[in-house]
Amino acid sequence: MGTRLQAAPELDLVIFGGTGDLAMRKLLPALIRLQHDGLLPARLRVIGVAREPLDRDAFRALAQQRVAACLGAAFDVAAWDRFAALLDYACVDATDAASYEGLASMLLAAPERERVFYLSTAPRLFATICEQLAQRGLNTERSRVVLEKPLGHDLASSQAINDAVGGFFGEQQIYRIDHYLGKEPVQNLLALRFGNALFEPLWRRESVRDVQITVAEELGVESRGDFYDQVGAMRDMVQNHLLQLLCIVAMEPPASISADAVRDEKLKILRALRPIAGADVGLKTVRGQYRAGAAGGKPVPGYLDEERIPPGSTTETFVALRAEIDTWRWAGVPFFLRTGKRMPQRVAEIVVNFRSVPHSIFGQTADSLNPNRMVIRMQPEEKVELHLLAKQPGDVMHLQPVHLNLDFAETFRSRRLDAYERLLMDVMRGNLTLFVRRDEQEAAWRWVEPIMDAWKASTERPKAYTAGTWGPASSSALLGRDGLAWHEEI
Amino acid sequence: MGTRLQAAPELDLVIFGGTGDLAMRKLLPALIRLQHDGLLPARLRVIGVAREPLDRDAFRALAQQRVAACLGAAFDVAAWDRFAALLDYACVDATDAASYEGLASMLLAAPERERVFYLSTAPRLFATICEQLAQRGLNTERSRVVLEKPLGHDLASSQAINDAVGGFFGEQQIYRIDHYLGKEPVQNLLALRFGNALFEPLWRRESVRDVQITVAEELGVESRGDFYDQVGAMRDMVQNHLLQLLCIVAMEPPASISADAVRDEKLKILRALRPIAGADVGLKTVRGQYRAGAAGGKPVPGYLDEERIPPGSTTETFVALRAEIDTWRWAGVPFFLRTGKRMPQRVAEIVVNFRSVPHSIFGQTADSLNPNRMVIRMQPEEKVELHLLAKQPGDVMHLQPVHLNLDFAETFRSRRLDAYERLLMDVMRGNLTLFVRRDEQEAAWRWVEPIMDAWKASTERPKAYTAGTWGPASSSALLGRDGLAWHEEI
Repeated sequence: MGTRLQAAPELDLVIFGGTGDLAMRKLLPALIRLQHDGLLPARLRVIGVAREPLDRDAFRALAQQRVAACLGAAFDVAAWDRFAALLDYACVDATDAASYEGLASMLLAAPERERVFYLSTAPRLFATICEQLAQRGLNTERSRVVLEKPLGHDLASSQAINDAVGGFFGEQQIYRIDHYLGKEPVQNLLALRFGNALFEPLWRRESVRDVQITVAEELGVESRGDFYDQVGAMRDMVQNHLLQLLCIVAMEPPASISADAVRDEKLKILRALRPIAGADVGLKTVRGQYRAGAAGGKPVPGYLDEERIPPGSTTETFVALRAEIDTWRWAGVPFFLRTGKRMPQRVAEIVVNFRSVPHSIFGQTADSLNPNRMVIRMQPEEKVELHLLAKQPGDVMHLQPVHLNLDFAETFRSRRLDAYERLLMDVMRGNLTLFVRRDEQEAAWRWVEPIMDAWKASTERPKAYTAGTWGPASSSALLGRDGLAWHEEI
Repeated sequence: MGTRLQAAPELDLVIFGGTGDLAMRKLLPALIRLQHDGLLPARLRVIGVAREPLDRDAFRALAQQRVAACLGAAFDVAAWDRFAALLDYACVDATDAASYEGLASMLLAAPERERVFYLSTAPRLFATICEQLAQRGLNTERSRVVLEKPLGHDLASSQAINDAVGGFFGEQQIYRIDHYLGKEPVQNLLALRFGNALFEPLWRRESVRDVQITVAEELGVESRGDFYDQVGAMRDMVQNHLLQLLCIVAMEPPASISADAVRDEKLKILRALRPIAGADVGLKTVRGQYRAGAAGGKPVPGYLDEERIPPGSTTETFVALRAEIDTWRWAGVPFFLRTGKRMPQRVAEIVVNFRSVPHSIFGQTADSLNPNRMVIRMQPEEKVELHLLAKQPGDVMHLQPVHLNLDFAETFRSRRLDAYERLLMDVMRGNLTLFVRRDEQEAAWRWVEPIMDAWKASTERPKAYTAGTWGPASSSALLGRDGLAWHEEI
């Protein structure tokens, strides 16, 4: 990350699920922008792989149509034509060994090229795909495999996937995507924490009162009801994204920004999370499920009335947690995590609330002075802000809150990369720092499983909350017991 | 300072030296602006006092002419007319007792009014003036006296002045002006330090590498050669302004913003300054005197060739010091002070340099990362900036320096008060916080005297520096011995 790794100029990027939503809506648009900025390897091939019987031209035409629909007015035909020249297609039915022939001969015709296999398919296919690639000698040392979530639905199934992929690719070749790690404000948080001497002395129990991590969606389950009902908010968001964000906030300074140094520190945090089990589950967690309400000014149905949701489902569409990290640095500092569907707006943010001044010299009570706060926001806009008090100019000492912008889009003026652009670049140049290691992933499962088990064993239903609100009242009560409130409610 | 004190609506502001430069160029313009903003007491009288035999109208005419010349295009006749209605005049020869009659009867005609005596005269007149006021019963409990520098030329003469004034006014009635304390960025430094929990943990030896305080003038001695040659930079700038700024940076949190709580803390710093005497004077101080050079692109004479400078004068026009504060908070942190005439530009600033990160995780060496810094600038513009490193948006972790504006002229949009406006308001409403207490002043003299004595006893001349440069090479060497450099040279 510090030194610029270079991608090999000759590289094949093979996208399994090449006609799927992720490919069309995220990966191809990201590649087009990278090409525009001159950031792609010199002689890149992008090979879409899917079951549809298409040839190269038909795939290009399909992709053009889908990408244009996705990009809307931002779609540029000239840029597309330049990009489409990189595109090829192989028709593969993942479960049909014979169908890999075409792909294999395409790749083996250029054995000198590095290869990235991007598995944007159902995870049950990962093992088969890796095995088939291996059987054709495509899993060389110069190959990498990229895995998209969900990586299992519990520890055991996640281990099964990791074992299967690990049978054919070494851990150093496996890139588990968590796209929140690719977001610019998350990167900047690392830069601010470890590039400045100012923040580290404050980044600990003595100065931090609490940390709040929110990933809220305005949408409901939409057309994915059958998928979502098997998953729920804990697996879909907490086990991966929220815990990864927590690690970035809480980790000790790594010795370097190299992949394993960073991931070792994140792992230490995951392992230091105090287990929540038994009676604690009721005290420290809230699960919710939305009922009918409003979104965007229109009435929307409750979860149980969405399409393809089984009657009486107890799947949670909202989770709030009070996590604690048992380390010298963080003992006693609550980390509140919250995610949900059908919230009032799409928000993803980390809020670090600092303690109040111990004593106010300015006449007001210390508590009445707004405490300092750092807000790292990924949605709806990307920014990092520091909330301070400064003197209002004038004849009296009147303190006023001011919000400092710490991410400087305007200072720098260079284009930000979106998360997939950044992560695709890192895959192509072999930089694992922003990808999740197996042991991290499994430690996260170990922490969330007892909570999910307790929920499953409980006779209580998830707490209902009205669509378009910030979740059940218990979510506010979770912070209220510490005398705190969620950031937006202040 | 926290609670808004109100000035009495009926107040007489008596300006001795009422036809002098300070009155015409600073005090009257400040009062005009305060009137414009509705910040003056409802029934204020402003009485100019001087030797010139003027009546009220002649004084108003003279003042109009002088203030208009000073304000230039900013002079507003309507505003002047409104203000001039407050103006009166009394002809007094300070050393002639009989001449006080007119002033006394003017004041005693309205015995219910509060009185502020602003002594903008030569300090040798302070004792006489106070005595004469007392003889006429004008030093009531509801009177205040404002003293302008220079308050003596050493400890003994300063004590003599304080004793003389103190014979007729209590310490709580004496307002010693140091106009640097009235500047908005200095106020904001107090707000930032004590209104936020973020800065105090950093504001100490563990995090601060060094502090630099610079007050540089572009001008030479101009027409004031005979005065300046008796004074020199140490008395003119260091003993008062620079040491006061040092106190504001270094003081412990006071229990409140009340005058004595703040001044007690400043006093503690002055008393904790490690004495510089004997051989240390050569190591820790630099005195300089400018020789011919350039200013504003034009050749200018050296100090010894200025008008009314005695041949061979050893008066210093430049001082640099390495001060140390013997407290738990600051032990080992050098405070570098610097002031001079004929510098490249007019600059007044405090720079707090934080230590480097202990270890760089980003590949560069830790030393190559610019350390964090807070810059509190009073000249040429008023601002408070925090210098940090943030991630440059893009595909690699590239840290870039960014400067955060912490004083928010644009956020607040309310007009800033200049130092004299602020201090005049504080005098009128009886707020002593921003004025220097006798014991502070004397402690400052106690610290600078041994240095001046050593210089006087030395056979060495001040180090020569070319007009239009940042002082003698020894000034850079003073920091170089600590591996440091003055801020602008970095």
